[in-house]
Amino acid sequence: MKEVLLSIIGAGPAGLAAGLYGGRAGLKPLLIEKLSPGGQVLVTDWVENYPGFPDGLSGYDLIEKFASHARLFGMEELSGEIEEIQPVDGGFELSLSGGEPVFSRKVIVATGAGPNKLGVPGEEELTGKGVSYCATCDGPFFRDQTVAVVGGGDSAVQEAVFLTKFASKVYLIHRRDSLRAIKILQDKAFSNPKIEMVWNTVVESIKGKDGVESVELFNRSEGRRWELKVDGVFIFVGIRPNTGFLKGLVDLDENGFIVTDDWMRTSRPGIYAAGDCRSKPLRQIVTAAAEGATAAYAVEHDLAMQE
Amino acid sequence: MKEVLLSIIGAGPAGLAAGLYGGRAGLKPLLIEKLSPGGQVLVTDWVENYPGFPDGLSGYDLIEKFASHARLFGMEELSGEIEEIQPVDGGFELSLSGGEPVFSRKVIVATGAGPNKLGVPGEEELTGKGVSYCATCDGPFFRDQTVAVVGGGDSAVQEAVFLTKFASKVYLIHRRDSLRAIKILQDKAFSNPKIEMVWNTVVESIKGKDGVESVELFNRSEGRRWELKVDGVFIFVGIRPNTGFLKGLVDLDENGFIVTDDWMRTSRPGIYAAGDCRSKPLRQIVTAAAEGATAAYAVEHDLAMQE
Repeated sequence: MKEVLLSIIGAGPAGLAAGLYGGRAGLKPLLIEKLSPGGQVLVTDWVENYPGFPDGLSGYDLIEKFASHARLFGMEELSGEIEEIQPVDGGFELSLSGGEPVFSRKVIVATGAGPNKLGVPGEEELTGKGVSYCATCDGPFFRDQTVAVVGGGDSAVQEAVFLTKFASKVYLIHRRDSLRAIKILQDKAFSNPKIEMVWNTVVESIKGKDGVESVELFNRSEGRRWELKVDGVFIFVGIRPNTGFLKGLVDLDENGFIVTDDWMRTSRPGIYAAGDCRSKPLRQIVTAAAEGATAAYAVEHDLAMQE
Repeated sequence: MKEVLLSIIGAGPAGLAAGLYGGRAGLKPLLIEKLSPGGQVLVTDWVENYPGFPDGLSGYDLIEKFASHARLFGMEELSGEIEEIQPVDGGFELSLSGGEPVFSRKVIVATGAGPNKLGVPGEEELTGKGVSYCATCDGPFFRDQTVAVVGGGDSAVQEAVFLTKFASKVYLIHRRDSLRAIKILQDKAFSNPKIEMVWNTVVESIKGKDGVESVELFNRSEGRRWELKVDGVFIFVGIRPNTGFLKGLVDLDENGFIVTDDWMRTSRPGIYAAGDCRSKPLRQIVTAAAEGATAAYAVEHDLAMQE
């Protein structure tokens, strides 16, 4: 069985920053990732608020920089999906789907979060056939077509603006009468002639045969129900953490995010958490990176205390 | 009196990241700084661990990027030193030495920290005459000379290695028998032929007339006292926060660092803290930046809740 001092699960900004700091501290961390490095950043078209890059850069480019930075300090990588973390004497045994298990003294969980679903009829059946949770991935398929964006936060508004690069018309459907998004994004949306706001309205179902043809809408303040013809539906109604495999192992908050102290220690000694999967106020690249750095520092500190 | 929604005191990575996020949120933040942007980063020769810059860059270059990034989103700047923060109706009145006062609804304190002194005879008199707290600033003055570095943490060891670029000999004087610095730095120091370790030893005084001539040392394990001829003394024995002006206004920890919650809110509603002046485990550029971003987000959130 492969034995390491530190495993890091997940290769978004939090996991890669933990790899950088853990590597620089001489821990030879092992980064375990399902696919390739990236996380949610890869579905971000353009990053304009990671401090130090005033010109902005693509999510892909930023992750490449993070990954090569961490590799420079000796981070190793393993491809695989964690099935279970089993506490054993002196550390943890990580079971991987389709791979040898790994013994690790300490574990940093940086598995991030994924999109919430609306949970309406047609959503699951038409996912990948016009229903999408990633404008960067699927926006280009809707050139000169009509799409609906569902949500009212930063992501929904930012992606609605982004989609106007391709679509001829974007309906921004929001269940309230005002947006939650920051002002700069609201201003961009309101001044964009391709975006039409649909206030106080929820999606009741998504209809179509081989692809999306329409959405059934319900205006909650007027009690009105109607059908809107669209070619695509982009859903941005929050995120849920990828923490299912941790149930019973560490304390989670009411939404399933991992609770930690200031050192990123979870309720179980030896397991740390960083990034979007953590219970915290602000989910940004820079906060994920800082938490990854802090978690690696805590691991280094806690290992030294045990020696 | 100038009136703003948000003032940020201090222009290191924390203050500038708060400026970036506050600006992007449309708050038109006012950054108040004694001198020019920088903070402790400017005394760092080379930054190799801010995630996203695998090639490393100088502290000066990184701060320039942070500052231009924040200015891009509308951060304003004011030169001045804060003398007092006075709670008034609906916000705070900031008194500046040699300038008009400013009314601000919210205040983010990002005043950083400065070097601890040894507190030994000769230290104060010879500061700037061979006694230094900044290798980047003063190292080049000691070409082909002999210097002492005092301390055993990351800063002391990193700067000792840096000083070998100039000095012909560097004594690293540490009061314990092992270093606290991370392993990669220890390895660099131990393998550098110009560095000689002086273990279990404290500096009792610094001697010299117009400049440093020697240090009086005491080996604690052997009870031995002797004089070592050096041309310069670089002191890296921890930091103390620049929070004196906050006494009685917000809760500080036993070392004077500002206590906050996860949102960077201090004990006084309307005042937030970020960066090295905050009570926390890890003081790095990336953690300062994340806290600045989070503090600005908290301000935006708290202002919106009040409207």
